[in-house]
Amino acid sequence: MIGASMGHRLALASFGESHGTCVGALLSGCPAGLDIAESDIQPELNRRRPGQSAITTQRKEKDIIKILSGTYHGKTTGAPIAMIIYNADRCPPDYIGSIARPGHSDYTANVKYGGYNDPRGGGMFSGRLTATQVMAGTIARKLLHVALGIRITSYTTSIGNVDADIDGIPTEDSIYGNDVRCPDPKAAPIMRSEIVQAHKSRDTLGGIVRSVASNVPAGLGEPIYNSLESDLAAAAFSIPAVKGVEFGSGFAGARSRGSINNDPFIPQDGGIRTATNNAGGILGGISTGMDITMNVAFKPVPSIYIPQKSIDMKTMLETTLQVKGRYDPCIVPRAPPIVDSMMSLVLADHAMLRGIIGPVL
Amino acid sequence: MIGASMGHRLALASFGESHGTCVGALLSGCPAGLDIAESDIQPELNRRRPGQSAITTQRKEKDIIKILSGTYHGKTTGAPIAMIIYNADRCPPDYIGSIARPGHSDYTANVKYGGYNDPRGGGMFSGRLTATQVMAGTIARKLLHVALGIRITSYTTSIGNVDADIDGIPTEDSIYGNDVRCPDPKAAPIMRSEIVQAHKSRDTLGGIVRSVASNVPAGLGEPIYNSLESDLAAAAFSIPAVKGVEFGSGFAGARSRGSINNDPFIPQDGGIRTATNNAGGILGGISTGMDITMNVAFKPVPSIYIPQKSIDMKTMLETTLQVKGRYDPCIVPRAPPIVDSMMSLVLADHAMLRGIIGPVL
Amino acid sequence: MIGASMGHRLALASFGESHGTCVGALLSGCPAGLDIAESDIQPELNRRRPGQSAITTQRKEKDIIKILSGTYHGKTTGAPIAMIIYNADRCPPDYIGSIARPGHSDYTANVKYGGYNDPRGGGMFSGRLTATQVMAGTIARKLLHVALGIRITSYTTSIGNVDADIDGIPTEDSIYGNDVRCPDPKAAPIMRSEIVQAHKSRDTLGGIVRSVASNVPAGLGEPIYNSLESDLAAAAFSIPAVKGVEFGSGFAGARSRGSINNDPFIPQDGGIRTATNNAGGILGGISTGMDITMNVAFKPVPSIYIPQKSIDMKTMLETTLQVKGRYDPCIVPRAPPIVDSMMSLVLADHAMLRGIIGPVL
Amino acid sequence: MIGASMGHRLALASFGESHGTCVGALLSGCPAGLDIAESDIQPELNRRRPGQSAITTQRKEKDIIKILSGTYHGKTTGAPIAMIIYNADRCPPDYIGSIARPGHSDYTANVKYGGYNDPRGGGMFSGRLTATQVMAGTIARKLLHVALGIRITSYTTSIGNVDADIDGIPTEDSIYGNDVRCPDPKAAPIMRSEIVQAHKSRDTLGGIVRSVASNVPAGLGEPIYNSLESDLAAAAFSIPAVKGVEFGSGFAGARSRGSINNDPFIPQDGGIRTATNNAGGILGGISTGMDITMNVAFKPVPSIYIPQKSIDMKTMLETTLQVKGRYDPCIVPRAPPIVDSMMSLVLADHAMLRGIIGPVL
Repeated sequence: MIGASMGHRLALASFGESHGTCVGALLSGCPAGLDIAESDIQPELNRRRPGQSAITTQRKEKDIIKILSGTYHGKTTGAPIAMIIYNADRCPPDYIGSIARPGHSDYTANVKYGGYNDPRGGGMFSGRLTATQVMAGTIARKLLHVALGIRITSYTTSIGNVDADIDGIPTEDSIYGNDVRCPDPKAAPIMRSEIVQAHKSRDTLGGIVRSVASNVPAGLGEPIYNSLESDLAAAAFSIPAVKGVEFGSGFAGARSRGSINNDPFIPQDGGIRTATNNAGGILGGISTGMDITMNVAFKPVPSIYIPQKSIDMKTMLETTLQVKGRYDPCIVPRAPPIVDSMMSLVLADHAMLRGIIGPVL
Repeated sequence: MIGASMGHRLALASFGESHGTCVGALLSGCPAGLDIAESDIQPELNRRRPGQSAITTQRKEKDIIKILSGTYHGKTTGAPIAMIIYNADRCPPDYIGSIARPGHSDYTANVKYGGYNDPRGGGMFSGRLTATQVMAGTIARKLLHVALGIRITSYTTSIGNVDADIDGIPTEDSIYGNDVRCPDPKAAPIMRSEIVQAHKSRDTLGGIVRSVASNVPAGLGEPIYNSLESDLAAAAFSIPAVKGVEFGSGFAGARSRGSINNDPFIPQDGGIRTATNNAGGILGGISTGMDITMNVAFKPVPSIYIPQKSIDMKTMLETTLQVKGRYDPCIVPRAPPIVDSMMSLVLADHAMLRGIIGPVL
Repeated sequence: MIGASMGHRLALASFGESHGTCVGALLSGCPAGLDIAESDIQPELNRRRPGQSAITTQRKEKDIIKILSGTYHGKTTGAPIAMIIYNADRCPPDYIGSIARPGHSDYTANVKYGGYNDPRGGGMFSGRLTATQVMAGTIARKLLHVALGIRITSYTTSIGNVDADIDGIPTEDSIYGNDVRCPDPKAAPIMRSEIVQAHKSRDTLGGIVRSVASNVPAGLGEPIYNSLESDLAAAAFSIPAVKGVEFGSGFAGARSRGSINNDPFIPQDGGIRTATNNAGGILGGISTGMDITMNVAFKPVPSIYIPQKSIDMKTMLETTLQVKGRYDPCIVPRAPPIVDSMMSLVLADHAMLRGIIGPVL
Repeated sequence: MIGASMGHRLALASFGESHGTCVGALLSGCPAGLDIAESDIQPELNRRRPGQSAITTQRKEKDIIKILSGTYHGKTTGAPIAMIIYNADRCPPDYIGSIARPGHSDYTANVKYGGYNDPRGGGMFSGRLTATQVMAGTIARKLLHVALGIRITSYTTSIGNVDADIDGIPTEDSIYGNDVRCPDPKAAPIMRSEIVQAHKSRDTLGGIVRSVASNVPAGLGEPIYNSLESDLAAAAFSIPAVKGVEFGSGFAGARSRGSINNDPFIPQDGGIRTATNNAGGILGGISTGMDITMNVAFKPVPSIYIPQKSIDMKTMLETTLQVKGRYDPCIVPRAPPIVDSMMSLVLADHAMLRGIIGPVL
């Protein structure tokens, strides 16, 4: 399933379009015997849902999940789990046009599919497809927690030029207690006001989400070509608008020295740990048992209300694009559950490859 | 081939160990009819080879490639191409020990493989395996050039805290005319001296390599899960020591605004281009026709000559590690041909998926 | 997507259960620009549908297809095509029990999924899932016909011990003009009466379906491990109840001699053909340009009304199973559209791998 | 690695050509800690080797295996295992020509690879590549035996029209004690004389090999699309000259009735068994715990010494082909170790997918 799916043992295929009938997720390989109901997944979808706060798009979607297959009496059966969200607030005509929106996939999708792609709101390229990632990822996240006690936590660490200062793993409350999903109580309101300001100036912002997986056993990862880093990065780059991924000290580490960046091994509770974690919990592509830390950079939302130069793909003439409709001034506040999900899907897949999660829970 | 291979149509599997018999590459799916001889590949291997300058490890390896299969009368046949380099300067006993080297895969490989992993110089986790990536990648690079006129150029943009200032795509001469492979004539000697200084202080440095693919047609990439960014990032993270990957404006773009980061579409030569290229040549996971630009962050080489705290994995006792042997003080000068190769392998694979490179050249 | 999907470029994932909410197909990789409406697919589903004649199960399912994604204005967009059939006549309680039905997957599914599998009518193992194969396969079949003029024809060649005598490729009318889908006007009524007799004696029959693909260009197939024969056989064995597959002269050819079984090459219309076709259109795993011929053996339906010895999986005690409910006395008459579909999916996938069907029609 | 590899967790890629430098196997995913030396594999290669008896081809190849990677101190390390056989008796000029040999891949390979394929003895399509399957398969077979006590036994059941009569699982001695590898002491000499007769009449014979896997735990197989039957059949059809595969009662079962073909479940030793085994140990694509039985039909060797009509692919003119050189009059006696190997590779892969063989032995 080139393009359409990710994962080896636990695999996700996404389908649907922004303004088509629905968006859907097909999760295959999930162990049998896991308690899963729609009510496990809906709260995470709500955290990603449009219209949940004043700083997100006002598209009206309740994003109600329906599980179509793969469970019986509230437990997974081992069969593929199909899940669907019917689109409610569909297709204002102003979404459709032949002017390539800068920063969007309109032009590249047009080239790739010879103009047959669904143009309504970006079709399959829409950020709306991330709802399918959250549906599947929430199951993976629960699986990791139930089977191995792994916890995945993702949160905003920067919006525009505002950086958070965060120590340790924040609580869910500290993350979701504010609109921007940043656990730094000083930075969060400044970030929020930056977004409001950008919105007022008809512009948009980007930002960075950090994801931390704790309690991950050492030994996950398939070197060389399906290292944890390769698979996590591939998953993160499948989220629209992501343009950078780093683990541990990442790009900053590249400016460091071996004597500083190396993490000394130390004994702890009869096992081996590292004193620091510049490796982001991964050495040789394999988990070390320390927290896995990944930073994911989101570009500013390309839909701005400022007029932009572009081209009409039908006439091939230059034109000025004036975006209408409803857009997020910054996608980052809605991104943590998506990054949670990608981290969860990859780790659960590798836990299955490693054999520490089996075919039956 | 989970773990052992990358690519869909054009696929690479790597094998061998740092101090075993050999390292080898198996490249499958290469179109028939491409002129390939060992002499096409040896020069690129030489650029990655140890011992080529005063600032690289003094391990003595000529890295002579031998093609074992897949060519006939100097042309590819369509059959898998197996290539091999016999290791010459093998296995000084001081490479082998039970002390986990900080920043290396010794500990994680030990956990993953229950202690059965080949410990000599990191075994399959050694940077030596990147020679297999260069063997295969050089074929892909030639294929892209012959079939589509695509050019791949990779070069050092920073070493430690020294940054290069580079405009446009540098020539091969400007890159390979100096030991650090940096086309900025001002920065290159400073970078070199930084490496020499670090080496003198028994320490190591990291850095960043930029890779640029020019003349890439629009339309390459398989959304959502095998987007160009996903596949390129997965490939880049398969290079040992890589801890960060970004495309276009990347992490800096996350601090920008939509009005600045968006690339306006403009007409050019009857086609569509963008005025800027903050997208790094990729929108919606699909190539735009602009240069594909990827930055790859390498951590400092973990083998430092300064004593480090660690643990003996056999006794589980704390100890101090004093690294001996021969190591690069900075791997970055040897990395450009490797990054070239990963970029080439992924683009050639996607060109085949797109059908613009067929089964016969 | 191990287990859950088939195909490389054009790939099918199936989901759903016999007596769950629905059965569904996700077809990814279909080229953009193909005219596809539900009305293209419904007729083929009707040919597979239960209750269509006196000799098929009387389960009442209209099997109405709904396309959920991947088309726009009646054409494929290049995005994954999700299709669904809601189950109507669901779940009589007598389908559910803990007695392992001989010849069914009840026991093996119970072992594999630790008893969590959906037991209603076999859950995901039900022959009902073949409707998902027909949904996707019909699109592939149309694609092959529109793009390359390939025709796929499948029909019954034996039921129990009654063999048909068929020369050349039969017409659709001659196949679907009778209940058993056998184009031999002499054999068809005898086959039908055999089924009626078996049903009266509370027993069931098996049979053989032949599938012929004509006008297939030479050169399809990926040696060694995704040869046309490997991929076609894997696809055919994914149809429940299939226990044998052969190509061309197959098992009979194994009793022949080289001088008889070899197909001499002859010139024809400026090209190369073979005088006979014992190879079934495949040499070295690659299509020859001659008709691809595959025979698929279906075992007798395991649900018989004669009491059978079995075991209660809950009590582990011996018991006698008396099957109730509605079953086909012979599945073969409903199988031709399924075999058509598997042949179509594999050939279309390989045509895309070969590059003779591109990403846009 | 489309085409070039088989398997999911435990995967084999084959390379090399009949009259090139070598043939080789790359086996990835093998658990660490398995004792493997060249001496484990050589005996199985010897059973497949040409020239071992009067009824096999007189090509002189000792087929000496060399392990290039993946083991250390006589045990597997978890790294990919590369193995190679250098070709010794290479390339008589009469192997090379432009006349398409009937029944061979010469024509289809020529079409597929635009004439660039290695024509010497069939290149990568040669039966010589089955040595790579035996190298890898022998490791898988040992793994299955050491880890799970599984035994794989393959033997000749028919040559031409001579059928063996075999009860139960024959011993290795009874199979390999005769040239045709048939454990029926009455049939074996008749088969041998049939081959001698065919050879005298310058003709060739086909036959059938049965493979039996005993002591396989219930629960192996990944429905729907990587069922045991799908994966075993795909593997078997990757052996050159195979044209039919069936499990259990197979094609004969299709002529039977449900009341006869169903295998009643019975209690045994606290577990569940079936009284008969018409299912060939597989229900719903999943192992039942009974012996897995697979029949594999080999066509007669296409290289006959009788003149044949064919076409010169260069001139496109009709011609008569007079085969020279050295060929097997019947390949079946050399096939049992190959079929053993394919059965072993697939079962070991599925045991790993099931998690009953882990990453470390």
